[in-house]
Amino acid sequence: MSLFNKTVIIGTGLIGSSLGFALKKKRLVSQVTGLSRHRKNARLAKGCGAIDRVGKSLGEVKDADLLVLATPVNSIIDIALKVSKRIKKGCVVIDVGSTKGKIVSAISRAIPNFIGCHPLSGSEKRGAVNLQPEIFKDSICIITPTVKTDKKILSKIVLLWRKLGSRVVILSPEEHDQILAFTSHLPHAVAFSLMGCIPDELLSLSSRGLKDTTRISAADPNLWSEVFLSNRRNLLSCISAFQEKLAVLKLALKRNDKMFLSNILVEANKKRERLG
Amino acid sequence: MSLFNKTVIIGTGLIGSSLGFALKKKRLVSQVTGLSRHRKNARLAKGCGAIDRVGKSLGEVKDADLLVLATPVNSIIDIALKVSKRIKKGCVVIDVGSTKGKIVSAISRAIPNFIGCHPLSGSEKRGAVNLQPEIFKDSICIITPTVKTDKKILSKIVLLWRKLGSRVVILSPEEHDQILAFTSHLPHAVAFSLMGCIPDELLSLSSRGLKDTTRISAADPNLWSEVFLSNRRNLLSCISAFQEKLAVLKLALKRNDKMFLSNILVEANKKRERLG
Repeated sequence: MSLFNKTVIIGTGLIGSSLGFALKKKRLVSQVTGLSRHRKNARLAKGCGAIDRVGKSLGEVKDADLLVLATPVNSIIDIALKVSKRIKKGCVVIDVGSTKGKIVSAISRAIPNFIGCHPLSGSEKRGAVNLQPEIFKDSICIITPTVKTDKKILSKIVLLWRKLGSRVVILSPEEHDQILAFTSHLPHAVAFSLMGCIPDELLSLSSRGLKDTTRISAADPNLWSEVFLSNRRNLLSCISAFQEKLAVLKLALKRNDKMFLSNILVEANKKRERLG
Repeated sequence: MSLFNKTVIIGTGLIGSSLGFALKKKRLVSQVTGLSRHRKNARLAKGCGAIDRVGKSLGEVKDADLLVLATPVNSIIDIALKVSKRIKKGCVVIDVGSTKGKIVSAISRAIPNFIGCHPLSGSEKRGAVNLQPEIFKDSICIITPTVKTDKKILSKIVLLWRKLGSRVVILSPEEHDQILAFTSHLPHAVAFSLMGCIPDELLSLSSRGLKDTTRISAADPNLWSEVFLSNRRNLLSCISAFQEKLAVLKLALKRNDKMFLSNILVEANKKRERLG
């Protein structure tokens, strides 16, 4: 069952190209055009079967029924505002950015049919070359409508993500950013800081524990500095909460207090078990 | 080629039983007896083919040619001192504990043929039930001799780990503890603190990033509080180094300084690439 006819995806990176591939495979859209700042990326996405054609310019959006903004967070608003006058009436626009507050508030004003989406399917890997056809399956997709969002369009977008196998969670853009600051942006800030403090000469002696704990610091530093800045206040308070926890662990260690220390680790350990 | 005849392994958990299995499979020892505080663990290890027989008491060590201490770090010294009068002359004793300073200094005095070992093959999983036959293959094993260590015995133990597929690195016990504080104990302290600060109600919205970053907080809290305490001073200075890095990242965020923030992430990212 096709949900949309002509679809344009701006940004043919890991998420954009995986989404194109999945939409085509499930026949949820009838034709996919991909646009990328670097045309070779879009050509690569076409080669992988993620898009049907490589778009030439932003003018391609003019007859799109579904427009997906899949560029890094810092350019989503700019691009949306640029294309807002060029899309046809009724075109549904979604993004897949990692923060939602600023994006949803800025774009909704210009494009009433805009719905913010955030599939929690990102990875430290990038580009169409890492395309994963099943990346949305059994994964969470957060959708952040506003009070003004058209209910019919919302249902259609919810259905789209469900058809891709995602579990849809509806949150306000503000709730999304508060939650993601804890569950995604803080772990990234911690992983980058941990990696940053390991002396170079010890890298060859690392074990799997260090590798896993710092895996996400292999993510794109430019993309992540934008994500951090676009959710600055929430992330700052999460960092403070983390600093307090670490300070308590340090105190237990300073005091050489086995019971105190053990209780801290037991609490974290029980929570980790629930994470699965 | 058999390196030792009768072998006794005290502690048939993940490492003890995996080691028994690997030694038997490679025919590096002729007979393996396993001892555990809980006899059902040792029976399980026997069931998995990790040991040939379940030992009844510490008295079993009396005719061992190789004695492996594979219990949690806090009991290694106690057990070593208990058996030191019962082992025969020439019995080679090794441990597989995660810290080395205190262990090597305490045990070497009582058992001249003791060599501290630390295979970097641990996991958050525990018990013979998680036995991994290939756990030592392509993994690092740190061996920490002292100036008094017999060179022939050291060569034999180096050979034993190499035959199991490990890359052997020789360090002093003090170097070992300084390095491991950074590469293993700090990541654990960070992972436990990160997990500890995530609000319970958000656990169901976590993505793979949080899961990977906190994976090692699924490790045994009792075992890890002992590891932390046995390497307290080194870990405290590593935590301070990490706190400084995180404070700098927070400052960049507070200042809303894209270039400053980006430089911090780029530095960590480059280091992570070298980690592989």
